Amino acid sequence: MRVSTLSIGDELTTGATVDRHAAWLATRCAALGLRFEEHRTVDDDRHRITRALRELAARSDLLVATGGLGPTLDDVTREALADALGEELVIDEAALTRLEARYAARGRVPGERNRRQVLRPVGGRCLPNDNGTAPGLEAVLDDCRVVVLPGPPHEMHPMFETHVADTLDSKGDAEVPVTINAYGLAESSAGDLLGELAARDASPLVGIRVSWSILAATIRGSGIEPVARQVEERWRPFAYGRDEQTLQEVVGGMLGARGATIATAESCTGGLIGGRITEVAGSSGWYGGGVVTYSNECKERLLGVPSELLERRGAVSEEVAVVMAMEAARRFGADYALSTTGIAGPGGGSEEKPVGTVWIGVCDTTAGHPRAWARRFRFPGDRTWVRDRTVKSALQMLRLHMLDASVPLIWEETS
Amino acid sequence: MRVSTLSIGDELTTGATVDRHAAWLATRCAALGLRFEEHRTVDDDRHRITRALRELAARSDLLVATGGLGPTLDDVTREALADALGEELVIDEAALTRLEARYAARGRVPGERNRRQVLRPVGGRCLPNDNGTAPGLEAVLDDCRVVVLPGPPHEMHPMFETHVADTLDSKGDAEVPVTINAYGLAESSAGDLLGELAARDASPLVGIRVSWSILAATIRGSGIEPVARQVEERWRPFAYGRDEQTLQEVVGGMLGARGATIATAESCTGGLIGGRITEVAGSSGWYGGGVVTYSNECKERLLGVPSELLERRGAVSEEVAVVMAMEAARRFGADYALSTTGIAGPGGGSEEKPVGTVWIGVCDTTAGHPRAWARRFRFPGDRTWVRDRTVKSALQMLRLHMLDASVPLIWEETS
Repeated sequence: MRVSTLSIGDELTTGATVDRHAAWLATRCAALGLRFEEHRTVDDDRHRITRALRELAARSDLLVATGGLGPTLDDVTREALADALGEELVIDEAALTRLEARYAARGRVPGERNRRQVLRPVGGRCLPNDNGTAPGLEAVLDDCRVVVLPGPPHEMHPMFETHVADTLDSKGDAEVPVTINAYGLAESSAGDLLGELAARDASPLVGIRVSWSILAATIRGSGIEPVARQVEERWRPFAYGRDEQTLQEVVGGMLGARGATIATAESCTGGLIGGRITEVAGSSGWYGGGVVTYSNECKERLLGVPSELLERRGAVSEEVAVVMAMEAARRFGADYALSTTGIAGPGGGSEEKPVGTVWIGVCDTTAGHPRAWARRFRFPGDRTWVRDRTVKSALQMLRLHMLDASVPLIWEETS
Repeated sequence: MRVSTLSIGDELTTGATVDRHAAWLATRCAALGLRFEEHRTVDDDRHRITRALRELAARSDLLVATGGLGPTLDDVTREALADALGEELVIDEAALTRLEARYAARGRVPGERNRRQVLRPVGGRCLPNDNGTAPGLEAVLDDCRVVVLPGPPHEMHPMFETHVADTLDSKGDAEVPVTINAYGLAESSAGDLLGELAARDASPLVGIRVSWSILAATIRGSGIEPVARQVEERWRPFAYGRDEQTLQEVVGGMLGARGATIATAESCTGGLIGGRITEVAGSSGWYGGGVVTYSNECKERLLGVPSELLERRGAVSEEVAVVMAMEAARRFGADYALSTTGIAGPGGGSEEKPVGTVWIGVCDTTAGHPRAWARRFRFPGDRTWVRDRTVKSALQMLRLHMLDASVPLIWEETS
């Protein structure tokens, strides 16, 4: 079964937005055992959308198009589909009823623009959307099944599952690819460790990619599981999870399993570690809270970091990171605590402490008395980069500590 | 001048890699004043590449293709271009000399695989690549100029500048597009407010898109500035900035200009507001810090929220949001404070307080005495969605308060 995809939107053809739907749909189609024919991107131009729909339908059995279904006048995908089919648009009464019910639940009535969203080509049908006002559309064009879905990912993804994936006869007999995720290793070391496993003619095939310093080895083909275990073994202790698992999920799961809690005391990360930890549903089970002490005054006032220490060693110092972690654990009554203090840039660097210098502190009180220590990192990259890698390094440090694994992480200064 | 782009590679059609070249090239082409016709993505299949080259050449004046020029056997773009042209491949002597010199500099000799990279169609030419072993290719197909560049971004980007951008007669005399950003309005209302400004045949052209509930109206064409001001006027007070400006930058800039400071007390957002505020370089000028009080115990211990209040009204209540904001302002000695308490889901909802219910509190002490209030929201979407919109709504609430503008935001419950 040949599948093609079409992304529609001015924001894509002007480069304002990176098209992530293409990769998401390609991944899902591959998992469903569909053969990928072609992907196209066009702007919100009725003629160009119509042409792309016709051409792709002619060479595909299934065409999934996304975008251009919103209420505004530049959303013309409905009209283009009608043009491609040579049909008129009519109001879909069932979709209108759903739209009105959705508005009524909030005590409102849909306006003229929103009512445009329930138009469909005469011979097509509307696909219900549980997460937004725009229904999808389905029609048959030139023997090709055409499915049009709204652009917002939290609407498009579940609609693809319901209206496309679940309707296919073949769910794909290929083994589901497995991805092993790791953090704290350089890409070249990660490649060296995999050695012949990652050869281009190996079976199953192991592909490594790196995104925001998260290493991901994806294993495709047949006989996946034994190779996945070998990758985990070779990347030990840096490999932390599989597929969509995140560091914060894994660390949260470990804390939950131990019935342990964690607190945070953040300076340069400004709350990002707390934000990341609480991304995980159920995190109230292991996270009571934290403090963001961005200024020195706050470090003194909220955590009792001695002003003498701040003056003598500076806020970005081992001692301050240790006191922050220890005080966070104490004040929140937590089993573990993480602290960060560093220079995220672009300003604030010095010769001794250049931009990218960060101390990450850990406190462990599970032995009945608090033990705290800190490690120094020197992260390359800009402000966003430094802060993101600080969060990841802190979570990985805690994970490795809980596993009793002591290894330096990438960018750690081990002098 | 109509331009199309073509991305080539199995990693794109399997979804292993997100295609960032499409957006990068679209941005550069827009800046050069080229009219974008179509983007396509195909796998490393000789037949499909040939077909895409032919079809895109027929509807474009310039076609920029990327990928499939490497030394391995799955790189077949050279062969496909020759097929499309109906020409043979021959060795390009100048390119071979450059390749041999490149290897000689490291004391090596190129192998058979690498020598494949200096093949070109008889009537085409090789484009030097200063950052890699694969030259680009250029040829004329069906009156369309076809340029093929290697896939690695650090090779492709400079080659595009040298071999494409610098060779164009017109460097683009088009005005630079302007984008107006807004938050707090429904997309349909935003469209209604723009009315005829956003007509598909208007000049300049106004296109609206929405990403994570941030509305963006991009104005393209000529006579941009007066229309940009009209968009800002019609979207007042929700429009907060232009182009790359973020809410946290704008709010930070306003605080900085007033010499005012802000503190945060976060529950359901877990530190994300602090993280967002400190994303802005120089934010230590207006942000001292905050607390994350995720559990009730922390709300009592760190902010002195009365346990009686937590029991009687619940943590997700107007009163608790107000006390949190007030106590944050007091304890940090800040001029303003923001607080959040809500049910991000997926669990924890009830009939009275369903998932998505969030109270956002604001405290203002600039009149010499603290004033605090809170507003109730009911956000749709999943956990990530609810938390993200809570952060944006909190920042927009503070911005509107500082501007003395009092309007309800989208998803606010105004009973």
